[in-house]
Amino acid sequence: MTSNPSPRPRIHQTHPHDSPHFHSTVSERKIRRFNCFIFVFRLAGFCFSLSAAVFLIATKPDSPHWYDFGAFRFVVAANGIVALYSLFEMVASAWEISRGSTIFPQLFQVWFDFGHDQVFAYVLLSANSAGTEMARQLRGTATCDVFCIQSDIAVALGFAGFLFLMISALLSGFRVACFIINGSRFHV
Amino acid sequence: MTSNPSPRPRIHQTHPHDSPHFHSTVSERKIRRFNCFIFVFRLAGFCFSLSAAVFLIATKPDSPHWYDFGAFRFVVAANGIVALYSLFEMVASAWEISRGSTIFPQLFQVWFDFGHDQVFAYVLLSANSAGTEMARQLRGTATCDVFCIQSDIAVALGFAGFLFLMISALLSGFRVACFIINGSRFHV
Repeated sequence: MTSNPSPRPRIHQTHPHDSPHFHSTVSERKIRRFNCFIFVFRLAGFCFSLSAAVFLIATKPDSPHWYDFGAFRFVVAANGIVALYSLFEMVASAWEISRGSTIFPQLFQVWFDFGHDQVFAYVLLSANSAGTEMARQLRGTATCDVFCIQSDIAVALGFAGFLFLMISALLSGFRVACFIINGSRFHV
Repeated sequence: MTSNPSPRPRIHQTHPHDSPHFHSTVSERKIRRFNCFIFVFRLAGFCFSLSAAVFLIATKPDSPHWYDFGAFRFVVAANGIVALYSLFEMVASAWEISRGSTIFPQLFQVWFDFGHDQVFAYVLLSANSAGTEMARQLRGTATCDVFCIQSDIAVALGFAGFLFLMISALLSGFRVACFIINGSRFHV
């Protein structure tokens, strides 16, 4: 059906950026590998952020709670938001790998991904740094028992989540640059 | 002198990336504007980081000192390092505007700029977030007088410095992407 006899061939009805059929087999494979990388980093970021939030929330009834400390509220909120966002981005990434096109129009998608990655990476780092300082302060007080260890582990998990989100931000930033320079999110 | 009769023209003796003479006048103007933007952001980042560090260091003799608090030591160190780095990058940027070539070879320069921008932006944000949490903690104690206000202002200045470093990181990240895609740090 490629040689359509009508004067306006069908391929022009879709935006050229949304069609993945302009690439050779080698390029297709490279793009797929790139997208799989993004998916893996999203998955890792999701796991670490979710476990950080859960670890801080799940306290024993007689110990202090995360909502008693401003910094830990920030840590739980930031990790929770990042976990939700990573889940959405995993779906978007899986969609792109399976169908070869983005959920939103490409221009919106690349900027959406990069903007959120960058902002959430900074928010998560900020929350984890504040949480670290809070945990440091807490270590000197009398109430520091299991909760102290728990908060240390939660913050460490949060930093791991940040690491993967940071790498995702670099990859999606590269896609934005490709889009600006080439007019396509692909660099090959 | 463009039509050199010798079989190996002189222009091949320099690496093509280091020569700025392949661009039209419009492109030259765009590149110059881009470099001027970078210079302005570096200058702003330098001013804010330096003032943040100085603001926290310059305490009255009878008040608490920045080196008594772990988080404030981190704030002073991070802002000091960023101020020094911004100063160096200002020189590099001015060099590039005036001479049209980078101080280091281009490949090294773009990765050096981007890597340091990205890492220092994260370090500065982390330091400022920890400093904010420390300042919040300090507000409840008895020793909170002029030093408390001083630390608040220093942290706010540090956040402003981070903002400009973040923008510089975006710009230098774009240059790296240009280099990967086009083989040149210019996008035009």
